[in-house]
Amino acid sequence: MARIGIYGATGYTGYELIKLLVRHPEVELVFATARSDAGKRLSEVFPTMIDQPLVSVEQADLHAVDLIFTCLPHNAPELIPLVQRALDAGKKLIDFSDTFRLNDPDDYARRRGRPHPAPELLVAAVYGLPELHREAIRHAQLVANTGCYPLTAILPLWPLVKAGLIADPEVIVDSKSGVSGAGRSLALKSHFGEAHETFSAYNIGRVHRHLGEMEQETGLQIIFSPHLLPVYRGILSTIYVKLQPGISADQVRAAYALYRDEPFIKLLPEGRLPELRHVQQTMYLAMGLQQVDLASGRYIIVSALDNLLKGASGQAVQSMNLMLGFPEPLGLI
Amino acid sequence: MARIGIYGATGYTGYELIKLLVRHPEVELVFATARSDAGKRLSEVFPTMIDQPLVSVEQADLHAVDLIFTCLPHNAPELIPLVQRALDAGKKLIDFSDTFRLNDPDDYARRRGRPHPAPELLVAAVYGLPELHREAIRHAQLVANTGCYPLTAILPLWPLVKAGLIADPEVIVDSKSGVSGAGRSLALKSHFGEAHETFSAYNIGRVHRHLGEMEQETGLQIIFSPHLLPVYRGILSTIYVKLQPGISADQVRAAYALYRDEPFIKLLPEGRLPELRHVQQTMYLAMGLQQVDLASGRYIIVSALDNLLKGASGQAVQSMNLMLGFPEPLGLI
Amino acid sequence: MARIGIYGATGYTGYELIKLLVRHPEVELVFATARSDAGKRLSEVFPTMIDQPLVSVEQADLHAVDLIFTCLPHNAPELIPLVQRALDAGKKLIDFSDTFRLNDPDDYARRRGRPHPAPELLVAAVYGLPELHREAIRHAQLVANTGCYPLTAILPLWPLVKAGLIADPEVIVDSKSGVSGAGRSLALKSHFGEAHETFSAYNIGRVHRHLGEMEQETGLQIIFSPHLLPVYRGILSTIYVKLQPGISADQVRAAYALYRDEPFIKLLPEGRLPELRHVQQTMYLAMGLQQVDLASGRYIIVSALDNLLKGASGQAVQSMNLMLGFPEPLGLI
Amino acid sequence: MARIGIYGATGYTGYELIKLLVRHPEVELVFATARSDAGKRLSEVFPTMIDQPLVSVEQADLHAVDLIFTCLPHNAPELIPLVQRALDAGKKLIDFSDTFRLNDPDDYARRRGRPHPAPELLVAAVYGLPELHREAIRHAQLVANTGCYPLTAILPLWPLVKAGLIADPEVIVDSKSGVSGAGRSLALKSHFGEAHETFSAYNIGRVHRHLGEMEQETGLQIIFSPHLLPVYRGILSTIYVKLQPGISADQVRAAYALYRDEPFIKLLPEGRLPELRHVQQTMYLAMGLQQVDLASGRYIIVSALDNLLKGASGQAVQSMNLMLGFPEPLGLI
Repeated sequence: MARIGIYGATGYTGYELIKLLVRHPEVELVFATARSDAGKRLSEVFPTMIDQPLVSVEQADLHAVDLIFTCLPHNAPELIPLVQRALDAGKKLIDFSDTFRLNDPDDYARRRGRPHPAPELLVAAVYGLPELHREAIRHAQLVANTGCYPLTAILPLWPLVKAGLIADPEVIVDSKSGVSGAGRSLALKSHFGEAHETFSAYNIGRVHRHLGEMEQETGLQIIFSPHLLPVYRGILSTIYVKLQPGISADQVRAAYALYRDEPFIKLLPEGRLPELRHVQQTMYLAMGLQQVDLASGRYIIVSALDNLLKGASGQAVQSMNLMLGFPEPLGLI
Repeated sequence: MARIGIYGATGYTGYELIKLLVRHPEVELVFATARSDAGKRLSEVFPTMIDQPLVSVEQADLHAVDLIFTCLPHNAPELIPLVQRALDAGKKLIDFSDTFRLNDPDDYARRRGRPHPAPELLVAAVYGLPELHREAIRHAQLVANTGCYPLTAILPLWPLVKAGLIADPEVIVDSKSGVSGAGRSLALKSHFGEAHETFSAYNIGRVHRHLGEMEQETGLQIIFSPHLLPVYRGILSTIYVKLQPGISADQVRAAYALYRDEPFIKLLPEGRLPELRHVQQTMYLAMGLQQVDLASGRYIIVSALDNLLKGASGQAVQSMNLMLGFPEPLGLI
Repeated sequence: MARIGIYGATGYTGYELIKLLVRHPEVELVFATARSDAGKRLSEVFPTMIDQPLVSVEQADLHAVDLIFTCLPHNAPELIPLVQRALDAGKKLIDFSDTFRLNDPDDYARRRGRPHPAPELLVAAVYGLPELHREAIRHAQLVANTGCYPLTAILPLWPLVKAGLIADPEVIVDSKSGVSGAGRSLALKSHFGEAHETFSAYNIGRVHRHLGEMEQETGLQIIFSPHLLPVYRGILSTIYVKLQPGISADQVRAAYALYRDEPFIKLLPEGRLPELRHVQQTMYLAMGLQQVDLASGRYIIVSALDNLLKGASGQAVQSMNLMLGFPEPLGLI
Repeated sequence: MARIGIYGATGYTGYELIKLLVRHPEVELVFATARSDAGKRLSEVFPTMIDQPLVSVEQADLHAVDLIFTCLPHNAPELIPLVQRALDAGKKLIDFSDTFRLNDPDDYARRRGRPHPAPELLVAAVYGLPELHREAIRHAQLVANTGCYPLTAILPLWPLVKAGLIADPEVIVDSKSGVSGAGRSLALKSHFGEAHETFSAYNIGRVHRHLGEMEQETGLQIIFSPHLLPVYRGILSTIYVKLQPGISADQVRAAYALYRDEPFIKLLPEGRLPELRHVQQTMYLAMGLQQVDLASGRYIIVSALDNLLKGASGQAVQSMNLMLGFPEPLGLI
């Protein structure tokens, strides 16, 4: 049994992660930290969960575990020192924030407008996308868990890039996400009266913090429009891409053959498009393909996943399985 | 044109109130106050609303208006001095909080565990329920707008009380409310991830702050169970009552004849029960009647209303029409 | 008082239309037809509505009215004869279906793959978009009420077309609609269990039946992706357009000056984007503008409306006001 | 590996059942029948499911399996012959309908107004509630899976009945259910536009078809008010009961000690009440207890479960585990 510690157990991703770990046959949860709920048991916060005590960061014993998940809020000041400490102690670590996802400190600095706080960690970290970086994840000590939105663009686009089919590097990604993506912290935009029975766009164009990951992994120039759906979980993205003129749908499908053995990717048959309910509570990224016009090479791809599973906590467990030498889908089916 | 001022224009009830006043042919909105949004225009907060400037409480000119609505949060410390000042200036005032709804300072003290902060105002205030206190409202200077939950119990029960049909004074009121009833202030229970696609009971038994109004107006002993629905607006209550044994459904219906000319009460025909969608965005309280057992006198009443209209802002406009001598339903159809 | 008849009163658009007509000061509803509910009163179908009798199509007296609304399902076989009969009797008529929206019978035949069943009516009909065809509507006998989706594209794009700002005629319109757009007829895709807490795309590319209207009115080539939102009412469209390189946001805004006096169009200020809740239960089409990149001329426009009001029944009343000589916004504010 | 057959795989309960069986380590799905989808694969109906072929009832080989689940619609005419055939062939069978839930043919006849179509099967069948009938289920050939609503009343009430604490046999059960309880068949009441963002009561009083089970198992007289929530899954019931005067909350809690070792029952601590989100996607029935008044013995119990898991398919797997000699919670955690 591998021994696991979680920093940040009471947010939505921490909570989903614990549900997965409880069902995983080869791991044991050693500690789980919380801020305001430290001192309680997890079952007091969520009555049908396990009785796991929630401890403060100070009370958590780094040395008692083999692998650590950090599910802290973006920009939590304790993150960098904590990661440094864990790595120095020889522990493996999977981080859920967007701190370590870019490969290049200069790219980070350009996109964020300030230098990375720990560039040597950034360089050492592996982007936690098993379908693209399986071997690197197996040998990584620090894995940057992927962002939820970027997966819905990278996984459908990468085979087309690899096959050289893309004619215009400017690609439009129109994404729609459930509210759980905004986390459990209170904010007017996540208030029931402002998020329910409505729909809105935000941070559209070239400004969202997830843009960097998408462009790094695909080499494309992405116009990205995130929207907020009145559902709890799931992201669906509609992707507008121009392929080489005259490329047939069969040729496009052939490019996806490299995903044939992937346990968690489903390319739907001709004429089917994924819906959120198909992927909610599952580990699948599902995608469908629609040719608009053969001559012009215009195609639309629709992709969908559960932002808390394949888009966050399940993805992290998939990486954990690789890092600990377990079968990759263990505990995830 | 009557001149109107609103204190607290950016909460959900203030906002609904302004929508009604904009459509009302005989009133003019003179000022509207806000806290954090003071200095903006209403259309900056809500793009399809009017351009009304939002001012601070200090900037609002009490003397420029004929009638004032106070839509402040419960327990706002500025409420009592503000009401006192308005009444001293000879203005009419309709208050949305539960500060002035009980008639008897002793009852207030017993129920809240502390004396009323301004008992002479409490005694002077009229409970703003036109169907029961129409004449008193016409001549009142201070009206306490009704609570949203209590209406769904008082209006169905009062005719039965008046007709002497109730055999057991203990009545169960199982109420289900949309989340807008909890207001626009941030709280974990109104966070989308905790209130959406779920359902819960809270403050059940004999503890909810709305219990006093219900018992005062009906003289009954109410067991009250509020629940939170994952909808924005509307309250539906299921009421369990024991009438005199052998009372027929027709006899019960006859008791409701006193509502025959009420513009906003609908007693549904035999076999129909109200649904929230029937009353949302309307001023109606609708109710349906189900006999369980003739011999025992067991009846179930289901009542429904829009908590922001008949249950709050529309009810206040109905009282305003009475206080200002306008036709009672003016601007409300 | 103008006398009005409605064919098809119990669908969602018929129902919304009646709510508007009840509040309209200058019209009187003379008849309303229904299929399975003929013989009942409207208040039996929907308890808080008026007592209007519902009659069969045969019982409706065409001669007793001045203007007719036909709110029948798409492809209802009785539509063409009924319209012909009404026009022959000298009545004005506003049709809600997509039968008469294209101007050119050849365009219709090409897009639908079959000739129009009454080409002379198609030619005579005016497309019911007041912002573009106000004078023609004033003098029309037959008006084809606009489709709900097309408005969200035509109204934002037309000023840019008119000003000659569009560089690439291929425009992407990614639209998201509430389920009421699919009507009240039973279908698995509108079943609660399949439409709730999910999200999906359908008929994407160049196949949706609303494409023709959009291309006719704008002269552009539209790639149109409709999606189904788990909300009842409202459409939000995200529009990707390439303008002339180097066009500033101010220049773009200037193109919209022609909407300055339009009662129901709101161009939001810099930095604001419309949300569904801003326009639900209102007559407004709201839009926001986002520059992606000055050099390339890439812009994103987000538009939103209530599909049952500005997108259907309210739009029809706006046209009715023009046809009957009433002030255009009468009964719609 | 036990071999399993399912009749009716494409309804909501059949679908949930298959998801559970796929994860169960000791069973193998041999056949799954469907009506209109026979001939397809399950993955064609639901893209992220297994490739299981869907066959017609005629194509299913009864002899190839050890245990059968019948998830047919209530009153499916093929049910009784199919059950008879399976039992004659020596197979074990768990039926999801309400055909075999009552023990007494006379009780059935009185409640339904017609004799039972196969009274000898009714007498032979065991009511599939492990917490009350564990041993009988172990040895049963035919198990009648419990109704979803009844569980929320029987499990909280039975310990009080057993301990002799109930003073008044008339108990009020006010239940609120997600729409999935109404199944996947098309009906106006499950149409998105009629079930979403609303709330309603139906069949209240003493008329619902689930009343018999509740009264049979508890011996009480239940007033039952079902309501329809705008959520997909989950039932929450608020139960009003009069216990012996002067019974303390601790005494009441003591009565629940008999559930101490139950894997799927959670009695929440003092002051906590269950919410739907606590039990959705889980096997738990959770309950909370509220004393209204010590002197009168008035208590309110709130109970909640996932109607598709503990309330249907998970419950059936729990019984299957007993019937096949597996550990009771196998595959359900």
